[in-house]
Amino acid sequence: MTWTVYLSGEIHSDWREQIIAGADRLDLPIQFTSAVTDHEASDAAGDILEPESSGYWRDHKSSGVNAIRTRTLLARCDLAVVRFGDKYKQWNAAFDAGYCAALGKPYITLHDADIVHPLKEVDAAAEAWAQTPAQVVQILEYLTVK
Amino acid sequence: MTWTVYLSGEIHSDWREQIIAGADRLDLPIQFTSAVTDHEASDAAGDILEPESSGYWRDHKSSGVNAIRTRTLLARCDLAVVRFGDKYKQWNAAFDAGYCAALGKPYITLHDADIVHPLKEVDAAAEAWAQTPAQVVQILEYLTVK
Amino acid sequence: MTWTVYLSGEIHSDWREQIIAGADRLDLPIQFTSAVTDHEASDAAGDILEPESSGYWRDHKSSGVNAIRTRTLLARCDLAVVRFGDKYKQWNAAFDAGYCAALGKPYITLHDADIVHPLKEVDAAAEAWAQTPAQVVQILEYLTVK
Amino acid sequence: MTWTVYLSGEIHSDWREQIIAGADRLDLPIQFTSAVTDHEASDAAGDILEPESSGYWRDHKSSGVNAIRTRTLLARCDLAVVRFGDKYKQWNAAFDAGYCAALGKPYITLHDADIVHPLKEVDAAAEAWAQTPAQVVQILEYLTVK
Amino acid sequence: MTWTVYLSGEIHSDWREQIIAGADRLDLPIQFTSAVTDHEASDAAGDILEPESSGYWRDHKSSGVNAIRTRTLLARCDLAVVRFGDKYKQWNAAFDAGYCAALGKPYITLHDADIVHPLKEVDAAAEAWAQTPAQVVQILEYLTVK
Amino acid sequence: MTWTVYLSGEIHSDWREQIIAGADRLDLPIQFTSAVTDHEASDAAGDILEPESSGYWRDHKSSGVNAIRTRTLLARCDLAVVRFGDKYKQWNAAFDAGYCAALGKPYITLHDADIVHPLKEVDAAAEAWAQTPAQVVQILEYLTVK
Amino acid sequence: MTWTVYLSGEIHSDWREQIIAGADRLDLPIQFTSAVTDHEASDAAGDILEPESSGYWRDHKSSGVNAIRTRTLLARCDLAVVRFGDKYKQWNAAFDAGYCAALGKPYITLHDADIVHPLKEVDAAAEAWAQTPAQVVQILEYLTVK
Amino acid sequence: MTWTVYLSGEIHSDWREQIIAGADRLDLPIQFTSAVTDHEASDAAGDILEPESSGYWRDHKSSGVNAIRTRTLLARCDLAVVRFGDKYKQWNAAFDAGYCAALGKPYITLHDADIVHPLKEVDAAAEAWAQTPAQVVQILEYLTVK
Repeated sequence: MTWTVYLSGEIHSDWREQIIAGADRLDLPIQFTSAVTDHEASDAAGDILEPESSGYWRDHKSSGVNAIRTRTLLARCDLAVVRFGDKYKQWNAAFDAGYCAALGKPYITLHDADIVHPLKEVDAAAEAWAQTPAQVVQILEYLTVK
Repeated sequence: MTWTVYLSGEIHSDWREQIIAGADRLDLPIQFTSAVTDHEASDAAGDILEPESSGYWRDHKSSGVNAIRTRTLLARCDLAVVRFGDKYKQWNAAFDAGYCAALGKPYITLHDADIVHPLKEVDAAAEAWAQTPAQVVQILEYLTVK
Repeated sequence: MTWTVYLSGEIHSDWREQIIAGADRLDLPIQFTSAVTDHEASDAAGDILEPESSGYWRDHKSSGVNAIRTRTLLARCDLAVVRFGDKYKQWNAAFDAGYCAALGKPYITLHDADIVHPLKEVDAAAEAWAQTPAQVVQILEYLTVK
Repeated sequence: MTWTVYLSGEIHSDWREQIIAGADRLDLPIQFTSAVTDHEASDAAGDILEPESSGYWRDHKSSGVNAIRTRTLLARCDLAVVRFGDKYKQWNAAFDAGYCAALGKPYITLHDADIVHPLKEVDAAAEAWAQTPAQVVQILEYLTVK
Repeated sequence: MTWTVYLSGEIHSDWREQIIAGADRLDLPIQFTSAVTDHEASDAAGDILEPESSGYWRDHKSSGVNAIRTRTLLARCDLAVVRFGDKYKQWNAAFDAGYCAALGKPYITLHDADIVHPLKEVDAAAEAWAQTPAQVVQILEYLTVK
Repeated sequence: MTWTVYLSGEIHSDWREQIIAGADRLDLPIQFTSAVTDHEASDAAGDILEPESSGYWRDHKSSGVNAIRTRTLLARCDLAVVRFGDKYKQWNAAFDAGYCAALGKPYITLHDADIVHPLKEVDAAAEAWAQTPAQVVQILEYLTVK
Repeated sequence: MTWTVYLSGEIHSDWREQIIAGADRLDLPIQFTSAVTDHEASDAAGDILEPESSGYWRDHKSSGVNAIRTRTLLARCDLAVVRFGDKYKQWNAAFDAGYCAALGKPYITLHDADIVHPLKEVDAAAEAWAQTPAQVVQILEYLTVK
Repeated sequence: MTWTVYLSGEIHSDWREQIIAGADRLDLPIQFTSAVTDHEASDAAGDILEPESSGYWRDHKSSGVNAIRTRTLLARCDLAVVRFGDKYKQWNAAFDAGYCAALGKPYITLHDADIVHPLKEVDAAAEAWAQTPAQVVQILEYLTVK
C-alpha cells in the first residue's frame, strides 16, 4: 500500500530533501507531494495570467494559482508533515495545519523546541511533533513498513 | 435572522471590543463568540486538570481544553473575522483560517497593509481583507441588515 | 415548523416582492432571505474596504463581500427559488443553482417558457420549474401548510 | 501523480482541443474529461430512451442523461476549467462552477475581458481567471510538473 | 429537548393519527412531520405548475414538488418511522428508508409479520421493527422522556 | 477512464447478463458490480455464522452480511442501474435508489411502463428511466465512450 | 449561547448527578443529555416490541432501540464526557468515543489514573482527561462562561 | 475488484494470521491492513521522538503516532473486522468500531459467545458477529468472489 505524504511549510532549508532521501534509502512506499517550493516561481505563479501593477493583487493571483495545487494535494494526501522554521511568519504552514485538522487528516509538526509555546494550538491538533527530519523518516518507516 | 460571528486571533489589542461596540451601536442581529481572550486564563486552562511540570505538556493540556471551545464555536459560527496583529507569531489565527477554509466557512481577515505578503495565502482564501475594526463593522452591517 | 427560502437571481423586477406578499397574505411560516438586491449597493459592497482603481478588482472585492452573505444564507436555507429574467447574463443565478445541487438543497426555477432550452441542465437538476411568482406561492403553500 | 481536469462550458470553439494539444506537447500528466461536446448528440441523449413530442421534456430527458456524465466526472476531477464564450447563455457552465464551489473543487475560469462584470461572482469563487487556452496550459504545467 | 420524527409510508390507514394521538396523550416533546398525505392533493401537486397531458410527466412534476417537502423534512428529522401496509407497492417508503440509512438517520419500520421476508434488507438497516402504532409510541416515550 | 456501474434489483430475469453482454460487445470501459444474485445463496449468507431457528433472525443475519457487500459496492460505484421487475415487492431495489439519492450518486431506473405510477418518486429522483437493457447499454455507451 | 453536553459511559456511580449539580450551582448554560441510565430499563428497551427467548437477540433489540437515542443525542451535542469506571468492560463508552472522534466532536474522558494505559488510544483522541466530576465542572465553566 | 479489509483489536492471539492464511488459500482479492501488532514496538512508537519520563505522556505520544496509521487505514478500508479476545480491556477495538460506525463503514465483530452482553451495543452496530476466524474467511469469500 502506497502512502501519500504532503510536505508543508518552510522553503528555505533542505528539510524536504532530507526526508525524501531518508525515505528513499529505506525504500519506503511513499509518494511525497508539496507546493511549488521555488520561492520566486511561487510568487510569480499569477504572472502567467497578466502582470499586476499592485503588489497586493499580484500576490493574490499567485496565491490563487498556488491554492489549486495545495488544496488538491492536501485533499489527496494520507498525512502531512508541517514544518515551521526559525524565520518568517509561515502563516501558510499554520493555515495548512488547520485545513488538515478540519478535514480529519493527521499531520506531524516539525520544528525546534524554542517555538513550542506559540505553536501550542497547532501542536495540540497534531498527531506528533518531531524536531528533526530524521525523526520524521523514522515515523514514516514505522507507519508504512512495520 | 441572527448571525453568529467568531472573532479569532490577536488578544493584545481591543479590536474585539471595537467591533462588538460598533455592532451594538447599530443594533446588528449578531452574536459574537471567541476563544477565551484572557491570556493567563487561557494558558492555565489545563491546570484545572493537574499541574504539569513540563512547560510543553502544560501547554498541550491547555490547548486541548481551549480547542473544545474553539472547534465548537467555529463549527457553530456563520463567519469568522481573523485578526493578525503586529506582534507575536499568531499561528493559531492562521490555523483557524485554514480550519474555516476547509469547512467552507467564509472569513474576513483584519490586518495592516505591511503584512500582506506573508499573509497572501490566508488572504486569498478569505472573502475579504479589512484594515480596521470599523470596516469590519460596516461589512457586518451590510451583510446582516441591508 | 418554519421554513427558510432563499430567493436567488434577477434583481430588476419585483418577483421577490410578489412572492413575499403572496406568502404574507396566506400567513405562510416562511422566512425569506436573499442577496442584497440593491444593485448599486451590491456593486459597491467592496468599497467599504478601500476603493480600487481597476474595475476588475472592485468587482472582485464586492463579490467577495457579497459571497459571505450568499454562501451563508444558501447554507441555512431549506430550499431556494432561482429566478432567470429576460435580460442580462445572470450567471450568478445559475451558479447558485449549481451550488444548491451540490449541497443537495432542493430548488425551484422561475422563468419564462422561451428560455427553457438554454436552462435545460439547470431545470433538470431542479425539483420544479415555475413560470410565475403566483405559482411559486402556491407551491410554498402546498409545501408548508398542507 | 496524474491529475484529472474537467473542461466545462462552451462547445462552439476549439478551446478544449487547444488545451489538450498544449498539454500533450508538454507531456503533462493530465487526464482531461468533459461533457459530450457534440451539440446534436448531447441534445439527443434522451432519444435513446423514447422520443418525446414536447421540446421541454426532450430537453429534460437529455439533460438527465448528460447529468450522469457531468456529475460523475466533476466528482472525480481534481480541478475544472470553466469556459465562457461570447455567444449563448451558457448557464450550464455557471452551474458547473457553482457545483465545484460547493464541493470545494478549485476551478479556473476562461473568458475574455469584456464579460468580467457579469461573471464577477463566478470569478470571485474561482482560483484563477485566464483569458487564453495558452495561459491555462501554462498554469497546468506549473501545477503538475513544477 | 424536542425531537422531530418523520412519519413515512402508507397513507391509506390511520397509523399516523394513532401515533400522534398516543404521543399527545403522553405529552411527549415531539414534533411530527410527514409528506402530504392527502392522496389526491399529492398526485396533483404538480398541477399548480401547468397541467400535463401525459400521465408520466404529470407524476414526474408532482413527485418533484413532493420531493422538496420530503427531502427537507427528512434532512431535519431526528428519526423516521417507515410504515409498510398490506396494499400497494410503497416503493417510496423503502426509498425513504434507504435515504435515511445513507444519511445515518435512525429509523423504525412498522409493518405486520407476514412481510418480514421481502423487507429483510430494509429491516436490517433499521434500528427497530414495530408491529403496532402503540409499540412505536412506547418506543418514542422511552426515547424522549425516560 | 474506467466506470463502475452497480446493478441493483430484480434477480429473476437475465437483465444483468444482457447489459453486461451488450457492454462487452461494445468493449465499454465498465466494471459491473452487484449484490450476490444467487437467491438461495443470498438468503443463506448468514448461515455461515450459525443457523438460526427463527426465520426472522435468519433473514436478519443474511441481510447483514449482504449489506456489507451492497453498501461497499454502492459507495464505490459511479452510477447505479436499479431494476424493478413485475414480480415481488423489491423493496431492496427502492432502498438502494434512496441510498444513492442521499449520497448524490446518479442512477437509472429500468422497468416497464405499467408501473410508472407507484415508482414516480423513485423515477423522479433518477437521472433516467429505461425500459429495456438495450437502452441501458446505449446510455452507458453514450456516457463512457462518446 | 447554550451548550449541549452528552454524558456517556458508566451507569453504576453518580458521576452524572455530580456534574449536573455542579453545573447547576454555577448556573452554566448547558443542557445535559445521555443514554437511558436505568440499567434494567435499558436492557429491556426492546421488550416493548416483543419478548425474545434468546438472550442474544433480546440484547440486540434493546441495543437497537437505545442506539436511536444515543446516535441522535451524539449527533446533536457540542461535546461529550466519556466516563470509564473501575468495573465492567464499558465497551459502549469506548464506542461512543470513537464515534465522536470520527464526527469531529470533541470529548473529555473521565477516569482514574490506574487505567491510563489501556485507555491510551481513547485518551489520545480526547481533548482532555479528567479524574473527577469536579474537574469536569470546572472545564465546563471555563468553556461556557469565561 | 480488490477489497481492503482492516483487522482491528486483539494482538495476543493469531486470529489475524488465520484470516490472512485462509484468504490466501482461497486466493481472495483482499488487501489486509492493521495497526502495528508488535506490542512493544507499538508502545514505543513515540520513543522515536524523544523519551518521556512520565508513563502517561509516553503512552500519549505513542498513541498519537499509532493513530496516524489507524485513522488512515480505517479511512481507506472497505470494511473492518474487530476482534475482542478474552483478556485485557481492548477499548481501542471498541473505539475503532465506533469510528467505523460514524463513518458508515461496515464491520464484523469477532468474539466468543460469553461476552455478547457487554458487547451488545458494538454488535448491534455491526453488520455481522462471527465467532471464529474461519467464519470470517467464509464471509470474506462470499463477499468478494461470489
